[in-house]
Amino acid sequence: MKAEIIAVGSEMLTPDHVDTNSLFLTDRLNDAGFRVHLKTVVGDDEGEIAEVLQAALQRSDLIIFSGGLGPTEDDLTRAAVAGVLGRKLSIRQDLLEALRVRFASRGYRMPSINERQAQVIEEAEILENSLGTAPGMWIEQKNVRIALLPGPPRELRSMFESQVLPRASRLGKGLRLAKRVLHVTGMTESEVDSQAAPIYKSYPGVQTIILASPGHITLKLSRWVEPGENPTDLDELAQAIGRALGRAVFSTTGEQLEEVVGRMLSESGRSVAVAESCTAGMLGMRITRVPGSSRYFLGGVVCYSNDAKRKLCDVSPDLLRDDGAVSPQVATALAQGVRKALGSSIGLSITGIAGPGGGTEQKPIGLVFVGLCDEGRSEHFKRIIPGDRETVRERTTYFALSKLRDFLS
Amino acid sequence: MKAEIIAVGSEMLTPDHVDTNSLFLTDRLNDAGFRVHLKTVVGDDEGEIAEVLQAALQRSDLIIFSGGLGPTEDDLTRAAVAGVLGRKLSIRQDLLEALRVRFASRGYRMPSINERQAQVIEEAEILENSLGTAPGMWIEQKNVRIALLPGPPRELRSMFESQVLPRASRLGKGLRLAKRVLHVTGMTESEVDSQAAPIYKSYPGVQTIILASPGHITLKLSRWVEPGENPTDLDELAQAIGRALGRAVFSTTGEQLEEVVGRMLSESGRSVAVAESCTAGMLGMRITRVPGSSRYFLGGVVCYSNDAKRKLCDVSPDLLRDDGAVSPQVATALAQGVRKALGSSIGLSITGIAGPGGGTEQKPIGLVFVGLCDEGRSEHFKRIIPGDRETVRERTTYFALSKLRDFLS
Repeated sequence: MKAEIIAVGSEMLTPDHVDTNSLFLTDRLNDAGFRVHLKTVVGDDEGEIAEVLQAALQRSDLIIFSGGLGPTEDDLTRAAVAGVLGRKLSIRQDLLEALRVRFASRGYRMPSINERQAQVIEEAEILENSLGTAPGMWIEQKNVRIALLPGPPRELRSMFESQVLPRASRLGKGLRLAKRVLHVTGMTESEVDSQAAPIYKSYPGVQTIILASPGHITLKLSRWVEPGENPTDLDELAQAIGRALGRAVFSTTGEQLEEVVGRMLSESGRSVAVAESCTAGMLGMRITRVPGSSRYFLGGVVCYSNDAKRKLCDVSPDLLRDDGAVSPQVATALAQGVRKALGSSIGLSITGIAGPGGGTEQKPIGLVFVGLCDEGRSEHFKRIIPGDRETVRERTTYFALSKLRDFLS
Repeated sequence: MKAEIIAVGSEMLTPDHVDTNSLFLTDRLNDAGFRVHLKTVVGDDEGEIAEVLQAALQRSDLIIFSGGLGPTEDDLTRAAVAGVLGRKLSIRQDLLEALRVRFASRGYRMPSINERQAQVIEEAEILENSLGTAPGMWIEQKNVRIALLPGPPRELRSMFESQVLPRASRLGKGLRLAKRVLHVTGMTESEVDSQAAPIYKSYPGVQTIILASPGHITLKLSRWVEPGENPTDLDELAQAIGRALGRAVFSTTGEQLEEVVGRMLSESGRSVAVAESCTAGMLGMRITRVPGSSRYFLGGVVCYSNDAKRKLCDVSPDLLRDDGAVSPQVATALAQGVRKALGSSIGLSITGIAGPGGGTEQKPIGLVFVGLCDEGRSEHFKRIIPGDRETVRERTTYFALSKLRDFLS
């Protein structure tokens, strides 16, 4: 079954707005057995909304509108849809009353412009909006279904989940998009693809998508599954790619790297403290994204200056002078220093050159060292990381976390 | 003049991909005098691409395609456009040769599927691609112009800037979208709007957009300006709104809050060190987003545990026991402690409850304290910040930076 999404609103035709509703809608429509084959963003223009709908009626089984249901003169979805379908648009007294009650319960008198939100297209089913004033509508027109949803994401999501999804699932006849996800770090997008492609190409029914973000590659495998069908080929493929990529795969369950490492720390009853130079707090911030991370994360130091490395991690001035702040020696000294300062089982450090300034021929921009130690071991790792300042910093936190993961294994 | 953007690629109809190219294109098209009135995302389907183009030819002066110019069977933009326009598609020998040279220069033999990228639509002008293998095209069809651009953002941007923008600007006849931007912190979106709306409503020719992100509101004012016209009304409006919002406006030049604070620190020759509990490094990370921040940022401590507050900032165990880690007393002690530990002019601290656990009736989730001190003054500030864990943390760093800004004023 084919679905199409039409987002209405002139603000979404500016350089500042992405239509994120359609990502949520696509995900949920896939679950209900619908492939999204077209998305349109149209401004607050009745003629243009009508034109897009006319085309959509010829090519889609389900049409989802978002936005344009507000109370102002710019909110034209209702009128445009009624016009194309040749149906009347009229105020429904019970909705008008409900709107008045909603305003009154908040101590306001309903402005008269809001009356427009009680307008209903002839023979449409009302989709209740528990989070806002704009009711949605569900319309059947020959073999096509049309849903009108409000633009604000909270309202749209809630209305979709409770009232559109059940209707769409019945139409979708139990078909669904089954998915498997692999999270990978320490490889580039093309390295991942060159390893994975020979495998996934022998599963032509599976769609494979590779998404790259700094320090982190996500592989998404999906295919349409009939009711009652068990997609064992998807599991096979995920396992085969997992074997090929080896240790670089850090999760097949959706867990983020900081969650994987946090679980390993929890399970082994160990704690960690961090010393960060160029990342200046990004590693601590990332580790503590996980609720409950206080069980294993004690804290850290942001030793952005040489003075801070000396004062907070007791790094010797000789070391800083002879080897420089960005060196394996200082990385090791920072890890040992922060471990001692905070009394953690493990010390983890980062020192590097994020750019755009500060690079030299010997020590180029992107050069980073990670230090790791516990009571018995002390290790350090070097990498030259490409990208701009923020990309280098993000990739470096992934690099540090993945070395901690290895250390804990 | 009306422009329309058509993004081609089935991957953009999945829940993982936003068409970000269109944001860049919209911004630059606005500068060239074009209003973007419609955006479509269509899959790798020749019939559907053709259908969207047919509709676009009826309603737009300029049509920008992105994507679908690759070498595979899924890359159908060239064929679909040629089909609709009734023009031939044929291999151009000079392009084929250039592609072969490009591959050879990297030590590869060109795969035969890449020959397809030398196909040119009859009478199209070639747009050279210095960053990839897919050339673009510029086509005139009666009064409509069509640009075919590659999907990868780097290639698209470079080709657009160098070869499409000059052509579009000539068509746009010097019209442009003039803009003014105000950055605001410490107010909610609705507070900003209730102050600004009575003012901007008296400038009906100006489009006002309010964008909210955690801790930070952006107000964008824009209107179309004729060649040679000076939009003094935009300046007037920006100044009037600026006066109404007062200190909450931290920038009218595009500077981020950390840049504003960094400039103030630099100019006054002062340095800062930070102590972070619930934000666990996010404040340090944000301050050091600014290249050159090492001039005024010495470092900090991430005192996630009570033990860390004691060890790194010398907070007394009595204070932690009697007042609790989330208290004005501990915020002050942390600011003083980190200032002393690092020898900075100013100490800045954050302690709070980011959630989802840890809240009590007396100290609810979202309660945060910011401490600030220098050699003479010591201050603390309290706020209860709504939102989920990450939102509370982001808003708290804005809150801390804006208090630092006040402190420096």
